[in-house]
Amino acid sequence: MSTLCRAPSWQRRGFSLKYILFTPKPPTRAFSTSPRGPGLRSLELDEPRLKKLKVNQSRLMDELHHTCQWGTGERWGEQGTETGMRRLSLSDADKQARDWFVDATKALGCNISVDAMGNTFAVRPGRAQGAPTFAGSHLDTQPSGGRYDGILGILAGVEMLRVLQENRVETAFPIGVVNWTNEEGARFPISMMSSGVWAGDIPIGHAYALQEVGGGTATVKSELERIGYLGILPASYEAMPMAAHFELHIEQGPILEKEEQKIGIVKGVQAYRWYTVEVIGQEAHTGTTPFGSRADALLAASRMICASHTAAADHGALASTGILTLSPGSVNTIPGKVKFSLDIRAPSDNIIDKLEKHLKSDFDSIVSTESTKALPLSVTWQTDSISPAIHFHKDCIAAVRASANSVLGDEALSREMVSGAGHDSVYASRRCPTSMIFVPSRDGISHNPKEYTSPGDCAIGAEVLLQSVLRYDGLRSNVGN
Amino acid sequence: MSTLCRAPSWQRRGFSLKYILFTPKPPTRAFSTSPRGPGLRSLELDEPRLKKLKVNQSRLMDELHHTCQWGTGERWGEQGTETGMRRLSLSDADKQARDWFVDATKALGCNISVDAMGNTFAVRPGRAQGAPTFAGSHLDTQPSGGRYDGILGILAGVEMLRVLQENRVETAFPIGVVNWTNEEGARFPISMMSSGVWAGDIPIGHAYALQEVGGGTATVKSELERIGYLGILPASYEAMPMAAHFELHIEQGPILEKEEQKIGIVKGVQAYRWYTVEVIGQEAHTGTTPFGSRADALLAASRMICASHTAAADHGALASTGILTLSPGSVNTIPGKVKFSLDIRAPSDNIIDKLEKHLKSDFDSIVSTESTKALPLSVTWQTDSISPAIHFHKDCIAAVRASANSVLGDEALSREMVSGAGHDSVYASRRCPTSMIFVPSRDGISHNPKEYTSPGDCAIGAEVLLQSVLRYDGLRSNVGN
Ligand SMILES: [Zn+2]
Ligand SMILES: [Zn+2]
Repeated sequence: MSTLCRAPSWQRRGFSLKYILFTPKPPTRAFSTSPRGPGLRSLELDEPRLKKLKVNQSRLMDELHHTCQWGTGERWGEQGTETGMRRLSLSDADKQARDWFVDATKALGCNISVDAMGNTFAVRPGRAQGAPTFAGSHLDTQPSGGRYDGILGILAGVEMLRVLQENRVETAFPIGVVNWTNEEGARFPISMMSSGVWAGDIPIGHAYALQEVGGGTATVKSELERIGYLGILPASYEAMPMAAHFELHIEQGPILEKEEQKIGIVKGVQAYRWYTVEVIGQEAHTGTTPFGSRADALLAASRMICASHTAAADHGALASTGILTLSPGSVNTIPGKVKFSLDIRAPSDNIIDKLEKHLKSDFDSIVSTESTKALPLSVTWQTDSISPAIHFHKDCIAAVRASANSVLGDEALSREMVSGAGHDSVYASRRCPTSMIFVPSRDGISHNPKEYTSPGDCAIGAEVLLQSVLRYDGLRSNVGN
Repeated sequence: MSTLCRAPSWQRRGFSLKYILFTPKPPTRAFSTSPRGPGLRSLELDEPRLKKLKVNQSRLMDELHHTCQWGTGERWGEQGTETGMRRLSLSDADKQARDWFVDATKALGCNISVDAMGNTFAVRPGRAQGAPTFAGSHLDTQPSGGRYDGILGILAGVEMLRVLQENRVETAFPIGVVNWTNEEGARFPISMMSSGVWAGDIPIGHAYALQEVGGGTATVKSELERIGYLGILPASYEAMPMAAHFELHIEQGPILEKEEQKIGIVKGVQAYRWYTVEVIGQEAHTGTTPFGSRADALLAASRMICASHTAAADHGALASTGILTLSPGSVNTIPGKVKFSLDIRAPSDNIIDKLEKHLKSDFDSIVSTESTKALPLSVTWQTDSISPAIHFHKDCIAAVRASANSVLGDEALSREMVSGAGHDSVYASRRCPTSMIFVPSRDGISHNPKEYTSPGDCAIGAEVLLQSVLRYDGLRSNVGN
């Protein structure tokens, strides 16, 4: 609690938050991609020159693990780095990681802005003024999370700044790295919270008032103040416009590993809908009630769960049930009531619509097949959440694709994907061109201490991120934007 | 609490418990089944004379509803008798019903014995001494029970005594009515508790020590003492032998009603086994994990529940799941672990064995079909309870069959049945010839305030009970037993 009301270290060292970030500044013109060559602008970064901009894998991984000293979690292996992470948003550990981010990016020539949600923007000036092209992700983790989800995206952004600096690359427009606050929604229960505020989709008052889960009294606002990250820049896409947003992230699924591919070119985010389905039957004695006289709510629900799986597979979609409760809950009483959650996902809203329709019809058939004249079953649906499909921007997707091909040298090593989970890029994409880059997750495991992506795969992802940002900057420069 | 340590009314009125019940007593020889005829012994009760012994339907029903003033439960209809019952074993209401039973049977010429479990035996002397042929059931109910389960069996027994008295029937051997303590196992959690002690299958110390459910401190023994029903007769089939035990009971299932039949001739009680089945899969994100990479414990469990239903139907058996729990229980996490109860029942142990084997093989197939190479599922079975099939005695079954045919005049109006639920007759059958008589339950509903059997059906059942007891007494007389 000694940090209460104390300015963060980078403020005490004389850095002051700027409302207007892009102060004119003489660009560092003397740089080169080769020891002998002249200074080179990104619009002149042709394919061979881009290829020479190499991510330093051990530097990237050393720095990533260095930052995992703040909020170290559960140990799962014997190696020093084989622990998970527990770095809840706006905790002391999160503050330490944020301070590192500010110090590191400042040392790389960036200007830092913190907005009213604690979103922290490190911007490296370009030749011309304008909205920066951003690499962004998050430094907070789940309570029992790993070392890669979110963290890799930020660390790869910092590595990008280092590569630009050591190669003295001047970009056409500013390049930024953004650390979004409370992406996980684990401590304060709204995920992608602060990119949502930035995008204008979540009211800041609502976010500020959120209390931490588990009965504590801390709120988002009180914790932002406490750790010194309640910035003066409005949390808004208008106050901090972005030319584009690229996010390197672990896949959190098994596809790349299974297909032995290295990069996912993320075209968008799946649509999903969440429902609560309630099945009402009739309680009855398990011993005295023949099958023909039952209205077994659990048997009907079981058939629905099986049917949802089959129908989703037929539609190229997903269906999952994570919660199921029943009553009365006695070994020798047939359940009269069952409630279960249903989570359906598909790449397009159209498929979701069709699947929902299909399932409603399937469930109705199950109910009428299982009903007897005397004992009808019934089913009702409640829609709990609707998240439409997100389609990323074609220019950003093209930049990622070109970069993946350049880095991997083989189109077969990358694939187009749709993200199954939400990310800050969902909200970013509402206000600027966006895409994401996925790297393999071992065994598809995430939100778990054992979450793991190999150093080689992390470096490949970071290099694709670097190239994507530079390609986008080059594209803007070419179109004079 | 004013009843504490106070002798029951029938004790205060001078009746004393007898260890040896069958004191010689001059049999009432002057009686007749017709106003003009001579005294008639049951061995001489031929078919036409048996048919003349008629149950008085309104007397039976009036007395049944009269006793339901003690422990009246939830109202479900507008008529005076349209309430359920809440008469927990050894409660004040139970004591009042017991006192009524003692007074009523004593007034009908019975000797009363109360054993160490509070089992209350009312015995009407016969011409010869010997173990009585009993009609028995229970006066306790579920906390939210009805007016027929158990109660009808006792009231029909008392009506039987009335019919014998008003027709001045002298039986060959004594005829008794027994009220068994805590059949429901609702207040003290062992069902058929005191017939179990009588049969020597439940140790009396274990029964005595049982505490009431819901956190109270009362035990079976303290409550027996409190209400004055801790008798001095040992609770044992040796101290109180029975020549036979007949039990009239509501079906508690829908079969008789559905088939438009009036009497179930109960040949035995189904075998059942209870298991806890545990399915272990792998938690994973619902959005990022394709079907091919899942080990969905709930999907597998749902398939098992459906398969258990199909297999049981194929074997002419029943399978039911009344409890299902899962973890971790989050809308967007595929359950990694599911536990569910499985209750299988069949008329014979042989069918149960086959069904168990069939289901173990089915569940193994489901587990291997749903498993992927990287993510295996597993299933384990735990056996929680084994109750072998009970086969009632052929002579008792024959007596019930003959009585049903006599009362109904049409074989099509009765059917042989196997009881799906346990009853005191299960334990009785371990120590004497036994059978049961079922009457229809409206909508198959039981253990519910709405439990209902029509007055006509109650009277038919009571008349079949009366005849069955007399036929068995006649059989003993004929074989000199
Ligand atoms: Zn993330
Ligand atoms: Zn009963």
